[in-house]
Amino acid sequence: MADRAQIQEAIKTQGEAVRKLKEQKASKDQIDEEVAKLLELKARLGTDDGKHPFVLKTPKGTRDYNPKQMAIREKVFSTIIGCFKRHGAETIDTPVFELKETLTGKYGEDSKLIYDLKDQGGELLSLRYDLTVPFARYLAMNKITNIKRYHIAKVYRRDNPAMTRGRYREFYQCDFDIAGQYDPMIPDAECLKIVHEILSELQLGDFRIKVNDRRILDGMFAVCGVPDDKFRTICSTVDKLDKASWEEVKSEMVGEKGLAPEAADQIGEYVSMQGGLDLAEKLLQDAKLSQSKQAVAGLTDMKQLFKYLELFKVTDKVVFDLSLARGLDYYTGVIYEAVLTQTQAEPQPQKQNSNAAEEPASVGSVAGGGRYDGLVGMFDPKGRRVPCVGVSIGIERVFSIMEQKAEASADKIRTTETEVMVASAQKNLLEERLKLTAELWDAGIKAEVMYKKNPKLLSQLQHCEETGIPFVAIIGEQEIKDGVVKIRNVATREEVDVTRADLVKEIKNKLQS
Amino acid sequence: MADRAQIQEAIKTQGEAVRKLKEQKASKDQIDEEVAKLLELKARLGTDDGKHPFVLKTPKGTRDYNPKQMAIREKVFSTIIGCFKRHGAETIDTPVFELKETLTGKYGEDSKLIYDLKDQGGELLSLRYDLTVPFARYLAMNKITNIKRYHIAKVYRRDNPAMTRGRYREFYQCDFDIAGQYDPMIPDAECLKIVHEILSELQLGDFRIKVNDRRILDGMFAVCGVPDDKFRTICSTVDKLDKASWEEVKSEMVGEKGLAPEAADQIGEYVSMQGGLDLAEKLLQDAKLSQSKQAVAGLTDMKQLFKYLELFKVTDKVVFDLSLARGLDYYTGVIYEAVLTQTQAEPQPQKQNSNAAEEPASVGSVAGGGRYDGLVGMFDPKGRRVPCVGVSIGIERVFSIMEQKAEASADKIRTTETEVMVASAQKNLLEERLKLTAELWDAGIKAEVMYKKNPKLLSQLQHCEETGIPFVAIIGEQEIKDGVVKIRNVATREEVDVTRADLVKEIKNKLQS
Repeated sequence: MADRAQIQEAIKTQGEAVRKLKEQKASKDQIDEEVAKLLELKARLGTDDGKHPFVLKTPKGTRDYNPKQMAIREKVFSTIIGCFKRHGAETIDTPVFELKETLTGKYGEDSKLIYDLKDQGGELLSLRYDLTVPFARYLAMNKITNIKRYHIAKVYRRDNPAMTRGRYREFYQCDFDIAGQYDPMIPDAECLKIVHEILSELQLGDFRIKVNDRRILDGMFAVCGVPDDKFRTICSTVDKLDKASWEEVKSEMVGEKGLAPEAADQIGEYVSMQGGLDLAEKLLQDAKLSQSKQAVAGLTDMKQLFKYLELFKVTDKVVFDLSLARGLDYYTGVIYEAVLTQTQAEPQPQKQNSNAAEEPASVGSVAGGGRYDGLVGMFDPKGRRVPCVGVSIGIERVFSIMEQKAEASADKIRTTETEVMVASAQKNLLEERLKLTAELWDAGIKAEVMYKKNPKLLSQLQHCEETGIPFVAIIGEQEIKDGVVKIRNVATREEVDVTRADLVKEIKNKLQS
Repeated sequence: MADRAQIQEAIKTQGEAVRKLKEQKASKDQIDEEVAKLLELKARLGTDDGKHPFVLKTPKGTRDYNPKQMAIREKVFSTIIGCFKRHGAETIDTPVFELKETLTGKYGEDSKLIYDLKDQGGELLSLRYDLTVPFARYLAMNKITNIKRYHIAKVYRRDNPAMTRGRYREFYQCDFDIAGQYDPMIPDAECLKIVHEILSELQLGDFRIKVNDRRILDGMFAVCGVPDDKFRTICSTVDKLDKASWEEVKSEMVGEKGLAPEAADQIGEYVSMQGGLDLAEKLLQDAKLSQSKQAVAGLTDMKQLFKYLELFKVTDKVVFDLSLARGLDYYTGVIYEAVLTQTQAEPQPQKQNSNAAEEPASVGSVAGGGRYDGLVGMFDPKGRRVPCVGVSIGIERVFSIMEQKAEASADKIRTTETEVMVASAQKNLLEERLKLTAELWDAGIKAEVMYKKNPKLLSQLQHCEETGIPFVAIIGEQEIKDGVVKIRNVATREEVDVTRADLVKEIKNKLQS
C-alpha cells in the first residue's frame, strides 16, 4: 500500500487534472471518470486514516442512475419495448446468477471475465454474462420449442471498461429472440426490421446495418486455404477490421497466427466486398467461393433475406459486408451489427477504417446479433436442437448518446409527472392543503404538497418552475369560505376560480388541452 | 455422495410424491417445489453419470418468470408505480452489488445472510441485501438532503425460504422513501396513505395497517424495568407476537433473555393494547408511561399522525398497536406494517395469535416500513443527518396472491399485446403477407404473421384464439386483385372487406370500440 504522502500527492495531481478538464469544457463523461479516480484516491486516504469508516463509492465499473438518468432510461425502454410488443413478443426474466456450470464453456476466452460468487456453502454460482445463455437454459429446462421473447436486464463482466464510451462492468442488455423451426430467413428478416425501427425511432442519427453469415465466412476461409483448426482464430482477427486497417489485420494473420500470405491476400479481396442482393448473386457465381457448400448455403439464404428486407422496406440501411465477423462462438448462420455513421460529439476522433475510407467514421456498434441454432441443444439432455435468431440492442451506448443530447438541449427533463401543486398563500392552512391533496390523489390526479406548516407561496411556485409542475391549486381563507379553488397555470400565470365540486373535472380538462 | 441406486430410489419416491400432489390438485407452488426437488435429484444423477454435463435448474431459492408471470408482474408494477408517481416521486437505481463494507454493520445478526462475491482481485463486493442501505449510501455520496424517490429492484438473502409462501433468495423490493427535514409526521402520514392506496387498488382483500413507534417501545421497556442493554433483544422477542402467543413470548423473555417476570407482565399489559388517536391520548395520561420522555414524544407524534390520517381518510384501516416491533436496527421513530386479514387459499392453516383471538388470522405482512433518521449519517464523513421515512411493499407476496387469483379465474391472461394477425387462406402469399404486416408495423399497429410459406388458415385462426389476438387481416388472390383486405373479428367471427387505403384507420377504429 502506498504511503499517505504518496496518496496525497496523487490527489493533488488528480485534482489539478480535473480542474483543467473543467476549464477546457471537456465532455461530462471524461470529467466524471477523472472525478471518480479522485474520489477513489480520497477514499483510500480516508481508510488509511482510520477516520472515515466508509468508502463512499459504487464498485468499480458500476454507477448509480439519478432521477434524470432514470427518466431518459424509461423513455428509451418504452420506445424499445413498444417496438418489441408491436412485433408480438412476450417477455421473461431469469435470476441474476446461474449455476457456474451453466455458463462454463459458452464464452471461450471471455470466461475469465465472469463474476463468481463466493463459496458460502451450497451451489457454486456466477453472475450472468449475457441474456442469451440463460435464455437457452430456460428453453431447454422448460422444453419450449417456440417462443418470441424479449428480455431486458443487467449483465456482468469483469472487464476494464472505458466508461467514457458508455461501457461498464454492470450494464443492461436488451435482447429480442425468436426460437423455433420456421421457413428460412423470415424471423431473421424480422430481427433486422426491428433494429431498423428502433434505431429510427430513437433518432440517434444515420445508421447502417451490416449483415454477413458464419457459413459464408467459413466457406471463404476454406476456399482461401485456411486450415480448419484456424477458422475461429482467423475469424476473430477479421472481426478487428472495423477498428484496424487491413494491413494491421493481415500482419496479425500472417505474423501471429501463421497464415500463408497468399491465403491472407485472398481473404483480403473478399472482405473488402460490400453490397446487397446483387453481391450475393455475384458471389454465387464466384468460381472459388461456389466450391464451398457452406458458402453456397449462406449466399442462397442471404439472397432470400434481402428479398424479405425489400418487402419490409429496410434495404436502404442494410449492407451485405463480408468483413463482418462477430466474435461469439455460438453463431451458426446470419450475423449482423448496426453502427451509427454520424459522430456524436465524441471526445476522441475515430480511427479511420482504411478499407472504408470514403465513409463516415463509425462510432461503434449499437446493436448486433445473429442465428445460433446449436446453443439450446447444448443444454438439452438429448441434444434436441431449437433454432434461434436474435438481436441485442446496445442500450448503454444509446443511454449515453441520449444523455449527451439531453444536456446539449435547452429542454428540461422532468423527473416527476406531478400535475398539480396544492398551495396556499396564507398561514395555518396545512390541514386544508392535505385534505385537498388527498382528494386529488383519490381522483387519480398526480399531486404534491409541501411538508411544511407554513410554506411561502413563492417557494411553492418556485418548486413548480424547477420541477415542471404545470398547475397550482391555491386555497386561502376566502376560497375556503366561497367553496372555490384558484387554479394557476404556471407557464402563463393565468388564474381562474373553480368550485370545489368541479375542481377534478376542470384540472383534467386543462391537462388534456 | 449418495450412490446411483440411492439417488434413483429417491427419484422414484419423489416422482410418486409429485404425481400424488397433482392428483390432489395441490397448489401450483407446492407442486413446483416438489418438482424442483425432483429435478435436483435427476440433475445429480446426470452429473454422476458423466453423460449430462448440465444441471438444468436455476440456483436454489431463485426462479425464472415465464411470460404469464411477467404479465402479472407488469400489471402489479404498473399499479404501484402509478401510485408512486401520483405522489410526485422520482426514481433512482443502484448497482446490484455494493462494496462489502457499505453493508457491514447495518443488518445485525442477519449479516450472515449476505451474498459475497468471490475475491477475484480488486474490491470486495456483496450483493445488496435491501434497497434502504444503498439509498442511504446514495444520499450521503451525492450530498442529497431532500428527495422523494421510489426504487424497485431485486435484493438477495441467503435464507432458507419457504418458496410455497412466495419467499425466495432473490426477490423484488419495492421501496418508497421521503428524505428531508420537514414538519413532523406529514411525510410519515403520506407513506401510510400510499400503502392504503396500493393495497386497495390491488384488490387483495381486506387489510389492516398496524402502527407503533420505536420511541414508545423503548419508553415502555424503560418504565417496565427492562435494562437498557436488553432493549433490542426484548424488542425482537416482542416482534414475534404476530406469530406466537403471549405465553410463548413471555417465556422467551423470562427464560432465555433473563427478564424479571414482573417486567414481562407489565410489558404484556401494554402490548395487548390497540386503538387510534384515543389510545395515544389515554397513554399520554398513563401514570407510568408518561414518565418516559421518549414515550411522550412518540405518543405526541402518534396523535398528530392520526390527525393527518383522518384528513387522508385512511383511519378505517390503521391501528395503533403496541405489540408491533419491527426487527431492523435502524428505525428511530414511527414504524408500520400492513397485513392482509383474509386467508388467501393458503395451503396451511395459520397459527392463531392468542391476544388477537377474535380477529381473522393474519396471512402475513404485505408492506412495512418506518422512520430511520440516523442511517444516512452513518455514511456521511461528517455524520450529517438526513431524516428519512419510507415504506417497502412486499411485492413477492403480492405476486403470489395475484398468480393464485389468476389461476382460479376463468379469464385468460394475455402475454402479448398483438392486435392483428395477418393471414391468408391460400398458398404462395407469404410475400404479400409480409408486405402487409410491415405496413401495419409502420403504422404503429401490433401485428403478427406466421413464419411459414403456406400455413393453414385454421392454424392461423387457432393461434389468435390461443393468444387472444382480437382481429385477423385476411388476404387472398381476390382481395389483392380488388385492393381490399378482409378484417375478421375473432370473437364474433364477423368479417368485413375494407380497402387497403382505409385498413389502418379501420383497424384503429375497431380497436378503440
